[in-house]
Amino acid sequence: MTATETPVRPLDSYILGSWRRPASDGEAQVVRDASTGEPIAAVAWEEIDLRAAVDYGRRVGQDTLGELTFHQRALLLKQLAQYLTGVKEELYEVSLRTGGTRRDAMVDIDGGIGVLFTYGSKGRRELPNARLLVDGPPESLSRDGSFGGQHVRVRRQGVAFQVNAFNFPVWGMLEKFAPAFLAGVPTIVKPASSTAYLAEAAVRAIVDSGILPEGSLQLVSGPARGFMDFLDVRDAVSFTGSASTARLLAAHDGVLRRGVLLTTETDSLNAAILGPDAEPGSPEFDAFVASVVTEMTVKAGQKCTAIRRVIVPADRQDALIDAVRERVAKRVVIGDPRADNVTMGALASVSQKEEVLRSIRELVAGGGEIVVGDLAEPEVVHADGTVAIAPGGAFVAPVLLRFADPDARAVHDIEAFGPVASVVGYRDLDDAVRLANLGGGSLVATVASADPDVVRHLVVGIAPMHGRVLVLDRDDARSSTGHGSPVPHLVHGGPGRAGGGEELGGVRAVEHYMQRTAIQGTPKTLTGLTGRWRAGAPSQTGSVHPFRKSLSALRIGDAVESEARVVTLDDIAHFADFTGDTFYAHTDEDAAAANPFFPGRVAHGYLLVSFAAGLFVDPAPGPVLANYGLENLRFLTPVVPGDAIRVRLTAAEITPRENEEYGEVRWDAVLTNQRDEVVATYDVLTLVAKEDRTADET
Amino acid sequence: MTATETPVRPLDSYILGSWRRPASDGEAQVVRDASTGEPIAAVAWEEIDLRAAVDYGRRVGQDTLGELTFHQRALLLKQLAQYLTGVKEELYEVSLRTGGTRRDAMVDIDGGIGVLFTYGSKGRRELPNARLLVDGPPESLSRDGSFGGQHVRVRRQGVAFQVNAFNFPVWGMLEKFAPAFLAGVPTIVKPASSTAYLAEAAVRAIVDSGILPEGSLQLVSGPARGFMDFLDVRDAVSFTGSASTARLLAAHDGVLRRGVLLTTETDSLNAAILGPDAEPGSPEFDAFVASVVTEMTVKAGQKCTAIRRVIVPADRQDALIDAVRERVAKRVVIGDPRADNVTMGALASVSQKEEVLRSIRELVAGGGEIVVGDLAEPEVVHADGTVAIAPGGAFVAPVLLRFADPDARAVHDIEAFGPVASVVGYRDLDDAVRLANLGGGSLVATVASADPDVVRHLVVGIAPMHGRVLVLDRDDARSSTGHGSPVPHLVHGGPGRAGGGEELGGVRAVEHYMQRTAIQGTPKTLTGLTGRWRAGAPSQTGSVHPFRKSLSALRIGDAVESEARVVTLDDIAHFADFTGDTFYAHTDEDAAAANPFFPGRVAHGYLLVSFAAGLFVDPAPGPVLANYGLENLRFLTPVVPGDAIRVRLTAAEITPRENEEYGEVRWDAVLTNQRDEVVATYDVLTLVAKEDRTADET
Repeated sequence: MTATETPVRPLDSYILGSWRRPASDGEAQVVRDASTGEPIAAVAWEEIDLRAAVDYGRRVGQDTLGELTFHQRALLLKQLAQYLTGVKEELYEVSLRTGGTRRDAMVDIDGGIGVLFTYGSKGRRELPNARLLVDGPPESLSRDGSFGGQHVRVRRQGVAFQVNAFNFPVWGMLEKFAPAFLAGVPTIVKPASSTAYLAEAAVRAIVDSGILPEGSLQLVSGPARGFMDFLDVRDAVSFTGSASTARLLAAHDGVLRRGVLLTTETDSLNAAILGPDAEPGSPEFDAFVASVVTEMTVKAGQKCTAIRRVIVPADRQDALIDAVRERVAKRVVIGDPRADNVTMGALASVSQKEEVLRSIRELVAGGGEIVVGDLAEPEVVHADGTVAIAPGGAFVAPVLLRFADPDARAVHDIEAFGPVASVVGYRDLDDAVRLANLGGGSLVATVASADPDVVRHLVVGIAPMHGRVLVLDRDDARSSTGHGSPVPHLVHGGPGRAGGGEELGGVRAVEHYMQRTAIQGTPKTLTGLTGRWRAGAPSQTGSVHPFRKSLSALRIGDAVESEARVVTLDDIAHFADFTGDTFYAHTDEDAAAANPFFPGRVAHGYLLVSFAAGLFVDPAPGPVLANYGLENLRFLTPVVPGDAIRVRLTAAEITPRENEEYGEVRWDAVLTNQRDEVVATYDVLTLVAKEDRTADET
Repeated sequence: MTATETPVRPLDSYILGSWRRPASDGEAQVVRDASTGEPIAAVAWEEIDLRAAVDYGRRVGQDTLGELTFHQRALLLKQLAQYLTGVKEELYEVSLRTGGTRRDAMVDIDGGIGVLFTYGSKGRRELPNARLLVDGPPESLSRDGSFGGQHVRVRRQGVAFQVNAFNFPVWGMLEKFAPAFLAGVPTIVKPASSTAYLAEAAVRAIVDSGILPEGSLQLVSGPARGFMDFLDVRDAVSFTGSASTARLLAAHDGVLRRGVLLTTETDSLNAAILGPDAEPGSPEFDAFVASVVTEMTVKAGQKCTAIRRVIVPADRQDALIDAVRERVAKRVVIGDPRADNVTMGALASVSQKEEVLRSIRELVAGGGEIVVGDLAEPEVVHADGTVAIAPGGAFVAPVLLRFADPDARAVHDIEAFGPVASVVGYRDLDDAVRLANLGGGSLVATVASADPDVVRHLVVGIAPMHGRVLVLDRDDARSSTGHGSPVPHLVHGGPGRAGGGEELGGVRAVEHYMQRTAIQGTPKTLTGLTGRWRAGAPSQTGSVHPFRKSLSALRIGDAVESEARVVTLDDIAHFADFTGDTFYAHTDEDAAAANPFFPGRVAHGYLLVSFAAGLFVDPAPGPVLANYGLENLRFLTPVVPGDAIRVRLTAAEITPRENEEYGEVRWDAVLTNQRDEVVATYDVLTLVAKEDRTADET
């Protein structure tokens, strides 16, 4: 069949701010329903003007995103997540055509929406309400304090170009989009053809929402040949797919000569290791078996994170194989996901099915023996409930192999990207580590054991070669998010064969789209550039106590310098008595003097910060609403009876909240004694009203 | 001349734990004194058994380093720095042969030693006394708290192979070695031939010191052809040198197929921008001119960080050129560095000299006009004080060019790696940013301005294309570490043309040699693996108060649960009166009730933590020596009069100090009320004796 036989809708691209339909008379690739073979859509071969799309992103997308702070971008992500939640049933419906079950659709669609929610939340909790990110602590670079350094992150000036795999058209797009958007970098999406209709449907929903700023997301529903030619040092490419294509990109002049930042995430031969303590019948054994079968059947095993190598004690292979066989027989119903009882759907396309069958044959040729399932065309449940072979469908039954030789290269090299896994036996823990690491770098591994020593041995041994390690035991078997599920909080990616890239991992992924730059200069310069006051920068004390200033009136560097207060022996004794903190350093002169750090009885640290608050607080109602915390407190010089302390409090960081009438102010507090020695330093955290209502009332 | 005419000592390699001299009859490249042309040494062309060296590093070096903690490794770096400081005069002597002055030698040798000191210090202050690094905060991944995630860093399992440039044989080696060593990864050094004798002398001193563990450092004084063939996903390569060689490495199968981690740092066309406010005669103008001349002459301009593009207001080009000409005439004396008054030495070799002269001619062909200096063979001061042309020497006079067309590709593309810079004029700030970024990614740029708005405009504009930006003004002109000097605290590297890599930057560089892995599991599992207690992990209260346990007896999870204490209105009133903290929320019922966060009068946060200390403290002398600080305090639920608070304190992290009789213990503190609501959480930081002397005495 060709496109002319069965006229189907061509997929549209969303570029330069509008939907663009390819010419109807062009050549096209017809994409088919994975279960029935019915044509769904046509991916046109017509070239999109990628140069124009990249230029549009760099101009318009950079401009519109550049006007927003991290918090504003994060709020848009949250709104988008809420909007998509409202229309996700429509996306589920489209997703059925990929062969995936409703559960599979949720992994893709809800998984993607979940990434938006997480970045919407983390963006406001873990990033400043600013456009520039401060990276790490300040560094002092001169003895007199007049010269220092500060790393910052500024967004890349180009586009984030994503090239996605067919298996997660929605999640794959959103998990890359969210951190780039939060960084302020516009995205261009190139989905894989075989499921591009679902990516198109998702982008259509996003565009319809009207939530995203102009130019922040473009979709290329067609070939993107030579896209690298239009990119340079300003741009980032995130590729998910085969290792061979990843290598072509890595060796491209765009990367080698023009400095395109490339991240690749390629399929890997992920392992699951059963600990020697996990005997058949143990909760860990059962959880392990369940995990293996889940990873074989969810998305019909088409996950780059799926378990491919099942590494078990050599004498427990039969037990494991029997348990997997039994669970597959009991739980797995293959068929069209539109049928009610189906638990495992089709592969994404007939060509994928052929590819998987060929890989299984290669595994057999490489020493594998099929011990569960077979290569025969399975009878499957059709949408109407009948059971029969589906000639146009892309069905493969779950297949488990066993390798008598655990060192056979095939088991560590050949990835059958479907419902396929292989079992090998290990002699001891070192052997298990060695076998897992023979994968040459993987996205994830599971270690199933309740023995802390086994867990430590295995995890420490395999961690250098893995991006993620899941430790499965009776206590997290139910609450675990699962071997195969990347979570937005944690890095997704792995060394070596897994591609060497990192995606997700909270703000780590946002930083990926930002250049880290070390700024050197005076404290004043660094304060001005970062919006964070640092010691040595100018500060101003005035007639108005800074606690009387609303968030909108307060300026970085506004300070109050207190009077001095003498700390008496009576104060110390009374504080000990009042609080019950009768630690000997405060109550026993001789014992205190014997302590290596104290000259004799000293004031409690908590007494000092309490007195300091008494010295700097402005008591009447005003814009400062609450002290919600304190950070980085260090006691540097002991205070003995008769010492006089004073405190200087300087507004160091001002963070308005987008959706509240207040924001956070971090104050730099320095406590000194009568010799100007620093007694203590800390940060006081307060909530401050944006406008001072008490002032309006008076 | 060939090696047979002038027999010179062949350079030795230090591999497999011993010095290895190449066969004396092999072919060799003679290396010559840069000022006189006299032969110094021969770099043999004999192949070193690199496979054996790599294998030795992976086995022996990994083993010996793996036995040490971060703190132990850091102490060795400090000891090595101290040792090298004691022998540095000998290295200065060798360094004279490179053509560099004593000041140049200090940049290389003291600079390298300084990196060791910094990592020796940072390793103990900023890393745990452990082998595994906790990366970022814990993440909760289940509602019931039974499943979470934690990123960790574990060292790579191979070697750090460094390929260095000729210009900094000592610094270049040590700045890469220190972070790799601290991470626990053994190093193999491949120096550039023309100054390999200085690297050899430095390694000889290091080996003689006997400080480093076996296998942690190897030196390949000869060809390292095909070294990439012996490396894989376990190994890291740090390359400094030409962009063309960097591209060959990046496209090598070792990187593309076997997953070698490659970092490249290539020369870049670094800019210095003079702000429009910096008029001739201003301190910023003078500092800018001084910086340009310094960068042209230190190391005879052979620095990858040197200023190549001098970007000034179009109408101030003449003033700048005049000022540079004048300063060169006044300050620069070219010659053999063995002569007393010489301020600028030779290039590293005659071939480098020819390369630089060719590049200058290309700049001229590309539109540049030489406005200071010329290409004639300069008369130079010889070691004996005479002034004459030195036929065997590699001398080039400082050359400044001017480009009438600031967009001429030559000025942004062609790097003359010697005492050469070019001036271009800009129209406005946006134009200055545009010109700076035409370098396609640089290591560093200087911005000279005293106007905060100018600084912000320029820095924010160029930061995305730069690894480091130095802001120069009257306040840091003297204390600045200088445009061309990478400091170990800050990242050295830059995007695009600069190679895209990152070196130094404090612990960031240590992490470069470690794999980041996300671990998932129960709080118990994550606590066990990281040595950091986290909420939900088991804790144990026993008959012995944990404050009575020495560091050696204390275990992660040891806890004390206090009695409850009722907080009365009298307590609050008294605390307000005693401390002077009469903030209305504690003293005025109506005003407090009007506050959006409080139900009425509430207890001071400082009162709560003070009472908590009274509840958990064990007062008699014991192993707990002092409370030196507090972190991450958050007040979560207000406490009103009549509430009863209690505190649970759990040993969360134990860090013995290597050189003291005590260490640090971080305690997790949770304050709850009578309804088990969490009132406050924080970390208490204490110093605890390794052994309990008070217990011995009783």
